[in-house]
Amino acid sequence: MLPQSFQDAIDQLNTLPGIGPRTAERLAYHLLQLPENQREEFANALLHAADDIQRCGVCYGVFGSDPCSICNDAHRATEQLCVVGETRDIIAIEKTGEYHGRYHVLGGLLNPIEGVHAGHLTVQQLVTRCADDDPKIDEVIIATDPNVEGEATAQHIRKVLERSDIHVSRLALGLPMGGTVEYADEISLANALKGRRTL
Amino acid sequence: MLPQSFQDAIDQLNTLPGIGPRTAERLAYHLLQLPENQREEFANALLHAADDIQRCGVCYGVFGSDPCSICNDAHRATEQLCVVGETRDIIAIEKTGEYHGRYHVLGGLLNPIEGVHAGHLTVQQLVTRCADDDPKIDEVIIATDPNVEGEATAQHIRKVLERSDIHVSRLALGLPMGGTVEYADEISLANALKGRRTL
Repeated sequence: MLPQSFQDAIDQLNTLPGIGPRTAERLAYHLLQLPENQREEFANALLHAADDIQRCGVCYGVFGSDPCSICNDAHRATEQLCVVGETRDIIAIEKTGEYHGRYHVLGGLLNPIEGVHAGHLTVQQLVTRCADDDPKIDEVIIATDPNVEGEATAQHIRKVLERSDIHVSRLALGLPMGGTVEYADEISLANALKGRRTL
Repeated sequence: MLPQSFQDAIDQLNTLPGIGPRTAERLAYHLLQLPENQREEFANALLHAADDIQRCGVCYGVFGSDPCSICNDAHRATEQLCVVGETRDIIAIEKTGEYHGRYHVLGGLLNPIEGVHAGHLTVQQLVTRCADDDPKIDEVIIATDPNVEGEATAQHIRKVLERSDIHVSRLALGLPMGGTVEYADEISLANALKGRRTL
């Protein structure tokens, strides 16, 4: 019933992560209702999404320049390195305003089931950066996701840096702000108890 | 931190209905990871989404031909007319395989708050179709959404067709299959009681 060109649009939208067939249909109808120039603008923006993207050769983050604006910022502390899975994690951490050191992007998390091993990540590059004396790194903060893959990755990094004199730390696990103790999941509550702090 | 071209892609995705800033970011990163030819294919499909779309001059549905394949199908009953808000409602009804008549697409539902009045819909065209003797229409099934706008639209159509000898019916309201009585919302349960059928 629907023309192929429209069905193609639905099918392509359906390939996006988290977008099922029904949502894809709804989005395609939305695009249909747009004036042609707005639809063009939309498609063009997606077509050129990656045009000015560059991988930073220092932190391996995906940004607009190499080295990226963070690695290039002389005001940022060089002795702290925050290790994240993806570039978008950097953006989340930057929004907190709590961290003023540099970053290292692994490009994923260990996931043996999906075939992601240490060799696929920038773990060796991290070891090299840590061994380097200029700049000298004192602390590596592992900020991988608080899930199975993130924990496995954190343990692996702790191990490969074991013999260095670098202090390796991990983001605190506990209750998220705004939640309640009653409805907290058991694992978060257990982590909050284990990580309790003196007031 | 992010290049403008990438930020543009995020902003455009953010204009889609139901896609917030965080989801838009996630989708943009997904597009970033695609090989260039796949990203091109994706953007092209969206660009050409509306290319072969035509509004059917009989039912006002948005399809690939005028008249559309349903209005053009000699095997479909001509004495029944199912009135829907949007073309996508036709697709949902066709999937049930329960209806073999023709359709009429209103192009929306009455919504005085958002400024959608009967003049914006194809109500007058519906009246003209119903007054026409070739084909003669015996029954109008109103299949608008079961919400405030859909109910108001159904009442309005019932009124404008009042003086004709056409039987006007409405989709049954009740409990959705797969649900439970315990967790059904009050209005659906009340409708199910009011619409109870003899077994």
